[in-house]
Amino acid sequence: MTYYTVTFQPGSKKVRVKRGETLLAAALDAGIVMNSACGGQGLCGKCRVIVKKGAVIARPSGHVTSGEIKKGVVLACEATVQGNAEVRIAQSSRVENDREKRPRPEVEEISPVAPNGPGLTAMDFPLVKKIYAELPQPSLNDNISDLDRIYRELEPGHGSVLFTANLSQVKQLGALLRENDFKVTVSLVDKDASSEIISIEPNTCSNENYGMAFDIGTTTVTGQLVNLATGKVIATAIAYNKQISFGSDVITRIVYASDAQGLQKLNRAILANIDEIIRDLCREHDIRVSDIMAVMIGGNTTMMHLLLNIDPTFIRREPYVPTTNMIDIVRASELGIHINPNGVSACVPGVSTYIGPDITAGILSSGLADSQDVSLLVDIGTNSEVVLGNREWMVGCSASAGPAFEGSGVTCGLRAISGAIEKVSIGSGETVRVKTIGDKPPKGICGSGYISLLREMFTHGLIDRDGRIRSDKKTKRVRKTKSGVEYVVVYKKDADATRDIAITDADIDNLKRSKGAIYSALVTLVKKMELTFDSVTRIYIAGGFGTYLDIASAVSIGLLPDIERSRYSFIGNSSLAGVRRCLFSRQARRSVKEIAKKVTYIDLSTEAKYMDEYIASLFFPHTDLTRFPSVGRGTEQGRG
Amino acid sequence: MTYYTVTFQPGSKKVRVKRGETLLAAALDAGIVMNSACGGQGLCGKCRVIVKKGAVIARPSGHVTSGEIKKGVVLACEATVQGNAEVRIAQSSRVENDREKRPRPEVEEISPVAPNGPGLTAMDFPLVKKIYAELPQPSLNDNISDLDRIYRELEPGHGSVLFTANLSQVKQLGALLRENDFKVTVSLVDKDASSEIISIEPNTCSNENYGMAFDIGTTTVTGQLVNLATGKVIATAIAYNKQISFGSDVITRIVYASDAQGLQKLNRAILANIDEIIRDLCREHDIRVSDIMAVMIGGNTTMMHLLLNIDPTFIRREPYVPTTNMIDIVRASELGIHINPNGVSACVPGVSTYIGPDITAGILSSGLADSQDVSLLVDIGTNSEVVLGNREWMVGCSASAGPAFEGSGVTCGLRAISGAIEKVSIGSGETVRVKTIGDKPPKGICGSGYISLLREMFTHGLIDRDGRIRSDKKTKRVRKTKSGVEYVVVYKKDADATRDIAITDADIDNLKRSKGAIYSALVTLVKKMELTFDSVTRIYIAGGFGTYLDIASAVSIGLLPDIERSRYSFIGNSSLAGVRRCLFSRQARRSVKEIAKKVTYIDLSTEAKYMDEYIASLFFPHTDLTRFPSVGRGTEQGRG
Repeated sequence: MTYYTVTFQPGSKKVRVKRGETLLAAALDAGIVMNSACGGQGLCGKCRVIVKKGAVIARPSGHVTSGEIKKGVVLACEATVQGNAEVRIAQSSRVENDREKRPRPEVEEISPVAPNGPGLTAMDFPLVKKIYAELPQPSLNDNISDLDRIYRELEPGHGSVLFTANLSQVKQLGALLRENDFKVTVSLVDKDASSEIISIEPNTCSNENYGMAFDIGTTTVTGQLVNLATGKVIATAIAYNKQISFGSDVITRIVYASDAQGLQKLNRAILANIDEIIRDLCREHDIRVSDIMAVMIGGNTTMMHLLLNIDPTFIRREPYVPTTNMIDIVRASELGIHINPNGVSACVPGVSTYIGPDITAGILSSGLADSQDVSLLVDIGTNSEVVLGNREWMVGCSASAGPAFEGSGVTCGLRAISGAIEKVSIGSGETVRVKTIGDKPPKGICGSGYISLLREMFTHGLIDRDGRIRSDKKTKRVRKTKSGVEYVVVYKKDADATRDIAITDADIDNLKRSKGAIYSALVTLVKKMELTFDSVTRIYIAGGFGTYLDIASAVSIGLLPDIERSRYSFIGNSSLAGVRRCLFSRQARRSVKEIAKKVTYIDLSTEAKYMDEYIASLFFPHTDLTRFPSVGRGTEQGRG
Repeated sequence: MTYYTVTFQPGSKKVRVKRGETLLAAALDAGIVMNSACGGQGLCGKCRVIVKKGAVIARPSGHVTSGEIKKGVVLACEATVQGNAEVRIAQSSRVENDREKRPRPEVEEISPVAPNGPGLTAMDFPLVKKIYAELPQPSLNDNISDLDRIYRELEPGHGSVLFTANLSQVKQLGALLRENDFKVTVSLVDKDASSEIISIEPNTCSNENYGMAFDIGTTTVTGQLVNLATGKVIATAIAYNKQISFGSDVITRIVYASDAQGLQKLNRAILANIDEIIRDLCREHDIRVSDIMAVMIGGNTTMMHLLLNIDPTFIRREPYVPTTNMIDIVRASELGIHINPNGVSACVPGVSTYIGPDITAGILSSGLADSQDVSLLVDIGTNSEVVLGNREWMVGCSASAGPAFEGSGVTCGLRAISGAIEKVSIGSGETVRVKTIGDKPPKGICGSGYISLLREMFTHGLIDRDGRIRSDKKTKRVRKTKSGVEYVVVYKKDADATRDIAITDADIDNLKRSKGAIYSALVTLVKKMELTFDSVTRIYIAGGFGTYLDIASAVSIGLLPDIERSRYSFIGNSSLAGVRRCLFSRQARRSVKEIAKKVTYIDLSTEAKYMDEYIASLFFPHTDLTRFPSVGRGTEQGRG
């Protein structure tokens, strides 16, 4: 087998690959995360790269013209290496930063533990507890075994816990105790009904006890380093899910997993994410990786399967059955996560394919399951999950909202990355003001930007209730193109983009279906329980998307119900907050198991009324204007 | 490094060893089990071999004369390999058979499960249970996870058990279920408070469920293959503990374990024993090793440490603290035992350094802990354990009886192997009749043989009450030698031995101290609890030794108390019976844990009266003849 060197620019990352390997595979080997929504099938055209030097074979396709190929532009997934080469990865093909850090919303930064609901203490028994013990020396009148001596010391302070020994930890215990005057620090993992010794170390090190909470999203992986001795959050890091290179959405990845080695590649990608975040945070905060004793993980059901290296094939086949919703405590090394060799890992339990651990963790941290009052939790994403209930009962459903709000399937769509337009104000005349994430020159529009834009366009009568751009409007920004009518938000000259940033009729159609799917899910669930929105005390908006969402805009376009704004709460990354709480508290771990048992999953496709509701919601804001009294007025004012 | 080939005869076993390696190490490498009571220190002289050809360097010692060295006789532990060599292992240096099988006494063969005490059922929940399940197919209305589907099916039939998943077993579960129409066999390991799935196999194989019970003695390892589906014992095998090559007794092995690699060598030796017995029994009975799902193990505390690869150093240092008395269920592979890769191993819990899992298992199977009546359990060996009590309370002690009854430290002593004299009758004149194990030509005398011999000699007035051979007796069998007076039991011409089989004054002294240690332990324990032997309903005699023991003889020489013979019960290898019961029954596993908690260990060295009792018992049968009324008469008759 012949091997060649491929050098990727910018960055001059070099990698040796086999002759005939694709550039996409080469980039992956080099640790470069590329856009590849279709998972390397040549369908999405997002993995464009420019070959600067060397022998690469590529063929023209719908995404690359023969003219472009002459200039060296190829799709990385279709171009094969035939000799040493140097390749530049186009801006648009690059996942913005391999690891991006952004300040989290206030609720995340200020309170290390999300506000406690009743019965949830901030930190009772963390997943792993380190206890320093000075044991009495044995004598002829007190010669119980070394391990019994440790049990005897620990048990009174920790209730009627049982201890089961971990074999590897007792092999040299006799010498360890005697060389250290019977002064040791014992690490206990809490298994609810019992505790298990996972590590016995000499002397005092009970304060060197750290944990990691992870929320594994399809797009981003968020990790949080916490001190398990004090309950303090030390730092948070966000990185793109490295699996993006194998496909941007869950379905593409499940398909990819069914290929030879596919599952293993996806599994390795997410493990690399986790290890990298752990290493980086430890280095930055001068903490030894070996002092991390526990990792608690949440995420959607597919991500959990891929993390656990479980074949996810049947998740996407009717009747959509996951292999498991619940993996309890295992050694972190068994999952392939590198922390203390004796450290453990646990996963938050989920409910079903569509109501995963990310949602149960979100329910936990929202407090929805602690109150007598009925509340709603909405987690907006490609699959948007909705949970309705209180401490007695909960029903949940998942609406296939599509990826429009995440920047896919819309002409100038972007994820909520720096440079993405998140707010739009249309002024008089031709004036349009935009606010971008990080106040960078605009590159495109993210979900919250589209919602803001749609509200403004609707308010100014630039679209009709059906969502069509009114080409009769006297503005240069509305113009006809080969593919239909579009409205220009930012001209190329003011943008960090290769063309004008615009919204088209087709985009609006996609966005309308997304917002319709979410709203009709909310309505269907509330009606199914014979309630109205009036009887819903609170609506929690969760998810990275929710962080930047303007409620007024969302109500205006009919995405969210028209109730008092004060009844809405943003809870940010409620999944991560819930995972962290599980890391800190036995009570939380019990609660989240109860939640997973209590939630009844409702399959909207089997709900007769859902389709009617959905069709009725494909208007701005809705077919039935009486449902949106405040919006109705706004629109009337806006028109004129 | 230069390597040479050493060929061992008989058998022509060849092994490559480094220049300078000892012949003892070479024999070990070749898988030959040799006598080496001192653990290769050149002290015991038991590892004599004859160098037939080749370059071996040896030096004269107390055990080998220079004349012998000229003939090629050397101690294997002191002779080093300097070139290719051929070596014959002398009969006396060879452990009789590497694996010896003998019919077990009736109690073992007839009842696969020892007689049940109250509250102990023969087989309730074996350590591993295989359950065949035909699961309902999932549908949109019933789309719980695959694992939940299994839980739902199993839980009603198995009480309120909890299941925790084993990660490796769920990775391909989705495909496994669907390829087999949701018909599977699940292996459940019983963890008392919960059950854990260790294996999910396609279709029906719930009858292919086997287990192994092991009793690991210092001298012998006994393994029993059982059917966990039916509760039947399939076969039993006994082998010499391969650790014998590193020393015959517990102390020598503990010392050996402290050398570099020593612990690991001992650990590997016992694992080799276990694997070999498993493989042999499986092959003989046409059972796949992979169908063995569970191994339950008992043995003395030191053997358990060596099995678990735990440093046993502190067992022999005051205050004699073991590292642990209790290791719960672990994967068999974690111990290094080769059965089904998902199979488990568990150890019976012990009490202390001297009251190990062999004794708690023995208590369990004897039924001592089930009755209101007070009973005694005596397990005779180098360390003889005595337990007194009933279902409410138990006290135990260990008497250092020495190895005389096991054939060590006595001139013609042998273990209870074929050819060992186990019974002696002294007739009129010069007639002496002997009975040997296996009715082979006599090679030496085993423990029960010595007891029988002493009784006969005492009855015929050949020894006085102090144990000295009466040289005034008119018989050719009593004769003076350089080292003292001896009595010839079998002349060389009638024996399979290199010299006359005889007993000396020094031998009797050793045997007297052994019997005195055991009897005084019994008395001390009974008196400490303010009881007498009259209030002891039953005396259970356990241990391989006990199997051949003649009670009348043992009482006659003052080894056992003089109570009605009907109150004695032989319970054979009660340790193995108890271990097997733990393999079969959850109730038994709970009971033995309770037993381990209830037994109070009494250290005889701290008992003021023990030494007085001991000194008083160094007579035949005892200083105080009123304690042995039936013996007193017998002796008087015998004299005359």
